[in-house]
Amino acid sequence: MGQNLTQKILTSHLVSGDLKKGNEIALKIDQTLTQDATGTMAYLQFEAMNLSRVRTECSVSYIDHNTLQTGFENADDHAFLQSAAARFGAYFSRPGNGICHQVHLERFAKPGKTLLGSDSHTPTAGGMGMLAMGAGGLDVAVAMGGGAFYLPSPKVLRVWLTGQLSDWVSAKDIILEILRVLSVKGGVGKIIEYAGPGVETLTVPQRATITNMGAELGASSSVFPSDEQTLLFLKAQGRAEDFVSLSADEDASYDETINLDLSLLVPLVAQPHSPDKVVPVTDLATLAVQQVAIGSCTNSSYQDLMSVRQILKGKHVHPNVSLVISPGSRQVLSMLASNGALTDLLDSGARLLESSCGPCIGMGQSPVSKGVSVRTFNRNFEGRSGTQDASIYLAGPEIAAACALTGYLTDPRTLGIPPVVDFPDLFRIDDSMILPPGDPDTPIRRGPNIQPLPLAPALDNTLSLPIILKLGDNVTTDDIMPAGSKILPLRSNIPAISEYVFNKVDAQFASKAKVLKQSIIVAGHNYGQGSSREHAALAPMYLGLRVVLAQSFARIHRANLINFGILPLTFVNEEDLTRMQPGDILHLLDMHQAVHSPAPFAITLNDSSDPVWVKHGLTERQAKILLAGGLLNATKASI
Amino acid sequence: MGQNLTQKILTSHLVSGDLKKGNEIALKIDQTLTQDATGTMAYLQFEAMNLSRVRTECSVSYIDHNTLQTGFENADDHAFLQSAAARFGAYFSRPGNGICHQVHLERFAKPGKTLLGSDSHTPTAGGMGMLAMGAGGLDVAVAMGGGAFYLPSPKVLRVWLTGQLSDWVSAKDIILEILRVLSVKGGVGKIIEYAGPGVETLTVPQRATITNMGAELGASSSVFPSDEQTLLFLKAQGRAEDFVSLSADEDASYDETINLDLSLLVPLVAQPHSPDKVVPVTDLATLAVQQVAIGSCTNSSYQDLMSVRQILKGKHVHPNVSLVISPGSRQVLSMLASNGALTDLLDSGARLLESSCGPCIGMGQSPVSKGVSVRTFNRNFEGRSGTQDASIYLAGPEIAAACALTGYLTDPRTLGIPPVVDFPDLFRIDDSMILPPGDPDTPIRRGPNIQPLPLAPALDNTLSLPIILKLGDNVTTDDIMPAGSKILPLRSNIPAISEYVFNKVDAQFASKAKVLKQSIIVAGHNYGQGSSREHAALAPMYLGLRVVLAQSFARIHRANLINFGILPLTFVNEEDLTRMQPGDILHLLDMHQAVHSPAPFAITLNDSSDPVWVKHGLTERQAKILLAGGLLNATKASI
Repeated sequence: MGQNLTQKILTSHLVSGDLKKGNEIALKIDQTLTQDATGTMAYLQFEAMNLSRVRTECSVSYIDHNTLQTGFENADDHAFLQSAAARFGAYFSRPGNGICHQVHLERFAKPGKTLLGSDSHTPTAGGMGMLAMGAGGLDVAVAMGGGAFYLPSPKVLRVWLTGQLSDWVSAKDIILEILRVLSVKGGVGKIIEYAGPGVETLTVPQRATITNMGAELGASSSVFPSDEQTLLFLKAQGRAEDFVSLSADEDASYDETINLDLSLLVPLVAQPHSPDKVVPVTDLATLAVQQVAIGSCTNSSYQDLMSVRQILKGKHVHPNVSLVISPGSRQVLSMLASNGALTDLLDSGARLLESSCGPCIGMGQSPVSKGVSVRTFNRNFEGRSGTQDASIYLAGPEIAAACALTGYLTDPRTLGIPPVVDFPDLFRIDDSMILPPGDPDTPIRRGPNIQPLPLAPALDNTLSLPIILKLGDNVTTDDIMPAGSKILPLRSNIPAISEYVFNKVDAQFASKAKVLKQSIIVAGHNYGQGSSREHAALAPMYLGLRVVLAQSFARIHRANLINFGILPLTFVNEEDLTRMQPGDILHLLDMHQAVHSPAPFAITLNDSSDPVWVKHGLTERQAKILLAGGLLNATKASI
Repeated sequence: MGQNLTQKILTSHLVSGDLKKGNEIALKIDQTLTQDATGTMAYLQFEAMNLSRVRTECSVSYIDHNTLQTGFENADDHAFLQSAAARFGAYFSRPGNGICHQVHLERFAKPGKTLLGSDSHTPTAGGMGMLAMGAGGLDVAVAMGGGAFYLPSPKVLRVWLTGQLSDWVSAKDIILEILRVLSVKGGVGKIIEYAGPGVETLTVPQRATITNMGAELGASSSVFPSDEQTLLFLKAQGRAEDFVSLSADEDASYDETINLDLSLLVPLVAQPHSPDKVVPVTDLATLAVQQVAIGSCTNSSYQDLMSVRQILKGKHVHPNVSLVISPGSRQVLSMLASNGALTDLLDSGARLLESSCGPCIGMGQSPVSKGVSVRTFNRNFEGRSGTQDASIYLAGPEIAAACALTGYLTDPRTLGIPPVVDFPDLFRIDDSMILPPGDPDTPIRRGPNIQPLPLAPALDNTLSLPIILKLGDNVTTDDIMPAGSKILPLRSNIPAISEYVFNKVDAQFASKAKVLKQSIIVAGHNYGQGSSREHAALAPMYLGLRVVLAQSFARIHRANLINFGILPLTFVNEEDLTRMQPGDILHLLDMHQAVHSPAPFAITLNDSSDPVWVKHGLTERQAKILLAGGLLNATKASI
């Protein structure tokens, strides 16, 4: 039986494991990308591995998140990342050069390759026939060091496209329709693979809009075939040599299939506060709009903005609407500037923002209180815009432009002749703001907020650990490591950020932990639920947390604990938790042997003769990580 | 004897007083401008006067400060200001339309008129032969209501210009040289008037660069004659009908004169942390530069940016330099976009920011730690950039562009052929982002952070006031009303911001004041020194402060106290301060009579038979303001 496209790329990159569903597999990573909000930690982690250069085919460090630079921390991060990229052999895309996913698609993405990025919208490059996945900074750092990326072998969901889009219906409507059908949980554990006769009707930028928002389905990735459209795009980027043809075998099988007739789609909008609350725009007509924002890694391509230009040209933005446009890249912006489109956009009353993530990540342009903002972005979570009571509607560029003109939610089909944008024969290619890998002796520039990354100690064979906290069920990573504007800028500074660990639970936690030097936390069910932030493991590790003994763990946080050298244990008898109090001592013996065995083992509570039976559930790979003192140490040892 | 230009404009606008130096004079104000950081308070104050429409020839409300919009407060301010402008009959310049001073010069400034603006760089319009002055929001609100502007009759300092600028020397070097000679205190109490044969060699945008930075001399205003250059500019703005010829009489006299031969000037730089620490750029050569910022109300005209374009075209920004460009207005930006200059700037590696104040007011683009930033701006105070340990150097656009190319402080004369920018026959005129005055019934849009303005009560004839605080010498307005990122966004919300009054001195101040309902502060010398912020009077007034009894006052704060209905008293015998303690009661009798008399009068401390003799030093105008309960109430009563 033939292979689907996903299986082909997985097979060609398989380092270990087999593709049986649910099995852990390890993949070779060809390319990595980082952005500045996650990149500082990834490069600090890479640096801690003591490798001199990246070992991928291509690693790119982008600056696109903190481009407002409202404090010294941002410029310091940029300087650190620029120096680290030069030293460690990565490309560095300067601030102003554009959004990582847009620039990567233009200048680096290659069909058939794997890409790991420390940003959840990394699957954008799936529009080019890449297997592109988002991951934590440490995973990306390991991949930069030549290490494999581990994931459970995914299911493959085929989206079979037929027909072609009607006038005024866009690629955004395709992914919004899929979100409507599958919901934001519909892609979990899956790779979404596009196929069918409708595929060839979609350009690479359109495909990238679709794969980009596969992240909102919860999918591990989304991928399109590499075909004539791919070649057309690569040729126009001066990169025809990067083309390979790639598609599923005709007799390939899939775990699931859904069918979508493009010709039946209508202009759609995702309502607040979830990308899957999708309805036809006609359902919302007459809703007044105060802001329209066009841009983001979803819809900021040359084609998108030229469509907007055709709609706005010679007309004027409604006086009650603030229209902001962030071109996806310097390539897009300079093409608009040189062909007169930018003048038309400015004449229509558009505000031009820098080519960066901007308002999509709440970095500026917070809407008015209780305002309605129509955005070509990918997420509309409550409060993400910076205005807690604003209502964010997600839509394609044509709807957005129409709303900007009328001041209310508008079906663009009412505007008359649809925009027609010719695919350029040649994009305007200028890589002068992408600095190539530099001298390995480049000194790292480290502002006062960028501190060296602490490493966990190797797991001791014998541990006597005081219980520093006893917690109930459903402790979140926000409880463990709060976020917010005061704490986020400290993410490159573990000593500083660790002062806030558990500070809403126990304001003295950090100082207590430092006095104890080593400690254990005991807790109820679902410890570590919520955001996947790795600082919720890294910062407690810095404070001496060696073990968490819980009734159960949230999956991602448990993995993070292991990655940062903290042993996660569960009770054999859950009620043993009631025997424990803060200040008690737990004695763990023969740990070097215990982590290799799946069997429960006994630990001692104070001097009690009644042992506490616990288990770890570690794979052999995870056991080795813990014995080495975390994934970084393990990776250093293995490469 | 003839009149100088300043005297001519003062005379033609004199409402009361005479021009004898130091006398208080009152001027009719023809035009006003506000920006969003000060405008919300000014329009709240205007609203509190219960007038239906502005009574100036032209009032313009600009949005240019908070255009990053990192929280809902900014968009709410914009919406409030847009609705207030429509309702009250002002023009509204939308966000993205540009910096108030640049746009005002382009579209509104008229020779021979007076302009009052709630921004310290309002004198920029002096480049057009206007008498343009900065003032507090309340003064501007009163002027919008048709009230006169009061100021001490100024000295006039003539700058006699001869010769003409050499290649690579710019208007910025003229004002930097004057700052070097006069210092940042050299203009206090003065209007700087430019004259001499060198004047005609300078275009209006060049003159505006010079008058703009007259603010850094501490001058009340700066003014150029209105001549052929003025007509050329107005014609190119499609406003020839606004031209009048205006200059000093040949036999006019001046209080002081300094002479400046333009041909002797060289490229200059102001070093950290003061605009008057001026040296030739050659003194600083080899200093490495990490950031170059071109823009601000000082140097962001079409001519400035076209010069920069000629220098950068075909070259590339140094990899260690972040070059950011903020065009002064949408007019400038759209001209650069339509003539190809923007493409050249982008190709060179410039980052394009929105047309707004931006990094000049620390609104983004904070430099790297310990970084050197060369900026075409007007202020380089320590920390103003957002990076406390950065070093900001002020220079003209040519030096800035040269530094961007080389990565170090560079004499532009080393670059070869100087840029030559033809003055445009016609600027690109499009006022579609300036909304004209709207319907008087427009409802005011008021977000949750915009609260009605509290008014002071009329001065009671008899007061018994508990002493809420006893303070020493040199209390600053920062002590009274702290600033900072947490408190500044509350400036439209007096109930909220008043919670922070004196909170570094006594965290319980606000709650105590509310319990007491009315109170008095007693203090030592120089009470209210520092920033001129009017909230240091307005917020304590809201909390019930009725009188401040001090050994002496800082001049501006004393005026603010009167404007907001708080009576400033001084001791006849300074040592009486030692008799007083917090909690004591001071009894004031017959105040309605006392404020009209210059004589000291007695007040009673608790039940002591030994009175405390005090005096007020109020003019009759100020007495009336206090009796009315502040300037707003007084203005309401008078118009």
